[in-house]
Amino acid sequence: MDFDKALDGALRRLHDEGRYRTFIDIARERGQFPHATWHRPDGTERPVTVWCGNDYLGMGQHPAVLAAMHEAIDAVGAGSGGTRNISGTTVYHKRLESELADLHGKEAALLFTSAYIANDATLSTLPRLFPGLIIYSDELNHASMIEGIRRNGGAKRIFRHNDVEHLRELMAADDPAAPKLIAFESVYSMDGDFGPIAALCDVAEEFGALTYLDEVHAVGMYGPRGGGVAERDRLTHRIDIVNGTLGKAIGVHGGYIAASAKMVDAIRSYAPGFIFTTSLPPAVAAGAATSVAWLKAHPEIRDQHQTQARILKTRLRGLGLPIIDHGSHIVPLIVGDPKHTKLLSDMLLDQHGIYVQPINFPTVPRGTERLRFTPSPVHGPREIDALVHALDALWSRCALNRQELAG
Amino acid sequence: MDFDKALDGALRRLHDEGRYRTFIDIARERGQFPHATWHRPDGTERPVTVWCGNDYLGMGQHPAVLAAMHEAIDAVGAGSGGTRNISGTTVYHKRLESELADLHGKEAALLFTSAYIANDATLSTLPRLFPGLIIYSDELNHASMIEGIRRNGGAKRIFRHNDVEHLRELMAADDPAAPKLIAFESVYSMDGDFGPIAALCDVAEEFGALTYLDEVHAVGMYGPRGGGVAERDRLTHRIDIVNGTLGKAIGVHGGYIAASAKMVDAIRSYAPGFIFTTSLPPAVAAGAATSVAWLKAHPEIRDQHQTQARILKTRLRGLGLPIIDHGSHIVPLIVGDPKHTKLLSDMLLDQHGIYVQPINFPTVPRGTERLRFTPSPVHGPREIDALVHALDALWSRCALNRQELAG
Ligand SMILES: Cc1ncc(COP(=O)(O)O)c(C=O)c1O
Ligand SMILES: Cc1ncc(COP(=O)(O)O)c(C=O)c1O
Repeated sequence: MDFDKALDGALRRLHDEGRYRTFIDIARERGQFPHATWHRPDGTERPVTVWCGNDYLGMGQHPAVLAAMHEAIDAVGAGSGGTRNISGTTVYHKRLESELADLHGKEAALLFTSAYIANDATLSTLPRLFPGLIIYSDELNHASMIEGIRRNGGAKRIFRHNDVEHLRELMAADDPAAPKLIAFESVYSMDGDFGPIAALCDVAEEFGALTYLDEVHAVGMYGPRGGGVAERDRLTHRIDIVNGTLGKAIGVHGGYIAASAKMVDAIRSYAPGFIFTTSLPPAVAAGAATSVAWLKAHPEIRDQHQTQARILKTRLRGLGLPIIDHGSHIVPLIVGDPKHTKLLSDMLLDQHGIYVQPINFPTVPRGTERLRFTPSPVHGPREIDALVHALDALWSRCALNRQELAG
Repeated sequence: MDFDKALDGALRRLHDEGRYRTFIDIARERGQFPHATWHRPDGTERPVTVWCGNDYLGMGQHPAVLAAMHEAIDAVGAGSGGTRNISGTTVYHKRLESELADLHGKEAALLFTSAYIANDATLSTLPRLFPGLIIYSDELNHASMIEGIRRNGGAKRIFRHNDVEHLRELMAADDPAAPKLIAFESVYSMDGDFGPIAALCDVAEEFGALTYLDEVHAVGMYGPRGGGVAERDRLTHRIDIVNGTLGKAIGVHGGYIAASAKMVDAIRSYAPGFIFTTSLPPAVAAGAATSVAWLKAHPEIRDQHQTQARILKTRLRGLGLPIIDHGSHIVPLIVGDPKHTKLLSDMLLDQHGIYVQPINFPTVPRGTERLRFTPSPVHGPREIDALVHALDALWSRCALNRQELAG
C-alpha cells in the first residue's frame, strides 16, 4: 500500500466536504475571560471574545481555583509521577473524590484523566463485571460513550433520541433475564436539549436495568449545589452511575464517575483505562476540588448563567435567527451547510473579533452544521450587544434564511 | 441479574488471589523528592522514600518546570476550556507540539491527554486510514496499545516478545499486498528490557510495513537530547510513529505522538480520542514544554540516572537478590507470588519507610510478581543504603530464595 497516498485521500475527503478543521490559536487572559488574544498563523495578534468555550461559568479563572493550583504546585510539584496504584495517589486526589461523591450524593467517586476516558473505560468494563450485559444507548450519546459501548463487542441497542417508547420496545424484545443498562445524557451539548431522566429511570425500574447518566454538560450548572440535572430534578438516587467532567463548568481538567462504593471499587479494579495511566497532576485535582466546593456554596452563579443564556436567546430570536431553544444554557444557531458555517465563523473572527467555532459533521449530523454559542456569567451586555449586531449584519450579507431551520 | 452479587463476586476474586489493590496515599514534598509523606488510612502520617515513581529524573520538582506552570496559570487561568478544535488550542499547546516534533526529529507532533489515550486513539484510527491494515503487536505491549489495536476489530497478529523471527514468519504468511504496521516498545517497563528496534525496522522495510514505537519509558532518559532509545541508536528516521508520555521522565502529564505532518494531520482529523475531549490545561503544556527543552540541553542528568541504576543493581546483586538486569534504568526484583510480594511491600513501608508498590497480575504474568524499583538522580547514597539494608533483612526473614528467580 502507498501509505502517503492513502493519507492524502483521507485528508482530501475532509477538504472536499469543507470540514477540514483548522485550529484557532487562542490565549485567554486570566481575569479577562471571555476576552482573549487570537494568535494568527502569520504571527500577528487580535483581541477576541470567546463565545464557544466550555468553561461555562468562568471558573477557569476563579482566584480560589488558581490559588489552590499554585499552592499544590508549591507543596508537591508538577506531575503525580505514577498511576493511581503505583505512587500516583495523593491527598488531593482523595479529597477531590470525596467532594465529587458528596456532590452527587453517592458513596464514592473515581477520577479519570478525562470524562472521555471515564465514559470509555467504565462502559467497556461493565460487560466484564456483568456478563451478558445489554447496553441501551441513546442515538445521540457522546462519542466517548459510543466508543466505550462498542469497544468489547458487547451487546448494544440504540434507541431513538430521547424516545422512551422506543427504548421500552427494545427492552421488551430482549431476554428478561439478561442484565441491562441504559446509557444517556442529561444535557445533549450540540442541541442543548435535556434527556427525559425520570421517564428513563421508570423504564429502567420496570426492566431491572442499571442507569448510566452523563452529566458532563450539567455538573456545576444545574441543581441547588451544582450536582447536575438529576440533582435539580431530585432523581440522583435513581441513577446508578453518574459521569461528569472537571474540564467544562468546573474550569480545570479531568473526569470521573460517581456510584456506590462497590461499583466504584469494581471499576477501579478492572478498568484498564483507569489502571494503566498516570493519575492527574495534584495541582489539577486541587484546583478542581476547590472549584467543586465553591460551586456547591454558590447557587447564584447558576442563576446568572441561565439569565445570560435567556437574554442571548431572546435577542437572537428577536432578529429571527434560527436558534434552537430547549431551555438550557447552550445556544445553537443552525446554518445547515459546512461551507457557510465556516464562512460565517471566519468573518465573525476576522471582522468582529468574535470567536465561535463552526460545528460540522461528525460532531453533528450533516445538514445541521451550526454555530454554538455558550454565554456565561462573564459575558456581559457589551459582549452580547457586539455579538447580536455582528450576527445581524453577517446573516443578511450571506443571504441566509431566517427562521426556516429553527428547531 | 443481582448486580450487587456480581460486583461482590468480581471483588472477591481479587481478594482471593491476593491481588486486590489498596492505594497508598502519598504526598510528595516539592524539592524533597524522593522523600514524601505517607498518609495512613487512620489519619496518621509517616515520612517515606518513594522507590516506585515514574518521575524518573525528578523533573516533577524542577524549579523551571514549576515556574512555567505558575506563569501559565497567572497568564491564562486553570483549564483550557475546550477541545482542541473548539477554543482549546493555545500557544502553550503549539509550543509543546513543536518541542516534541523537534525532540523526535519529526515534522509534527500531536498532544493527547495521556500516552494511554495517544496509543489507544492512534492505533484504533490507523485501520480507518489504511483499510485492511494488519497490526503486528509484541505480546508484551502495554495495555493501552492492546486496547487500541483491539478496538475496532481490525486484523492483528501477536508476535512472541522481541522475537523478530516469529514476526517475520507471521508477516510472510499474510497477503503481501495488505498494508501492515509493527507496534512495539523501546523499553518494556516491567522487565526493563529493550525492544530490538533496528531488527524490527529491517523486517518492516522488508515487508513495506509502518513502524509504531512506544517510547514512554525512554523519552527524556535515552539519546543525546532525550529523544529516546531510537535517538540513542540513530534509528529515529526509521520509525514512522513515535508515542511518548509527558507524565513520567518529563514530570508533568499528558501524552503525544510524533510523525510526518501528513500522518499527524490525519490522526488529528479522524481520531475520536483526540477530537472529543478537553485539551490539556495550558499550565500542564507549559510545564511539559519547559521540561522537554531543559532535558534536551542536559545530557548529564541521563548519565547520572544510569549511574544510579547501575549502583543499585550492583548492590542488590551483591546480596544475591533475584533482580532482572537488561541494562536499563528499571530494577525489578522478582518475588514470584502475589502474597509474598504484598507482604514485603507492606513491611518495607511500615518498618522502613520505603515505598515500593507490589506489581501483580495482570500488569505482569502470574508467578512473576515483583517489586519494581526506579532509582533516579535524586535517590542518593543514603537512600540506596537504606533500601539495600532493609531488603537484605526482610528477604532473610521471609525465607525467600535468593537467585533462583533471577531473569
Ligand atoms: C508502555 C506504556 N505506554 C503508555 C503508557 C501510558 O502513559 P500515560 O501514563 O501517559 O497514560 C504507559 C504507562 O502509564 C506505559 O507503561
Ligand atoms: C457529553 C460529553 N461527555 C463526555 C465528554 C468528554 O469530556 P472531557 O472533555 O472531560 O473528556 C464530552 C466533551 O468533551 C461531552 O460532550
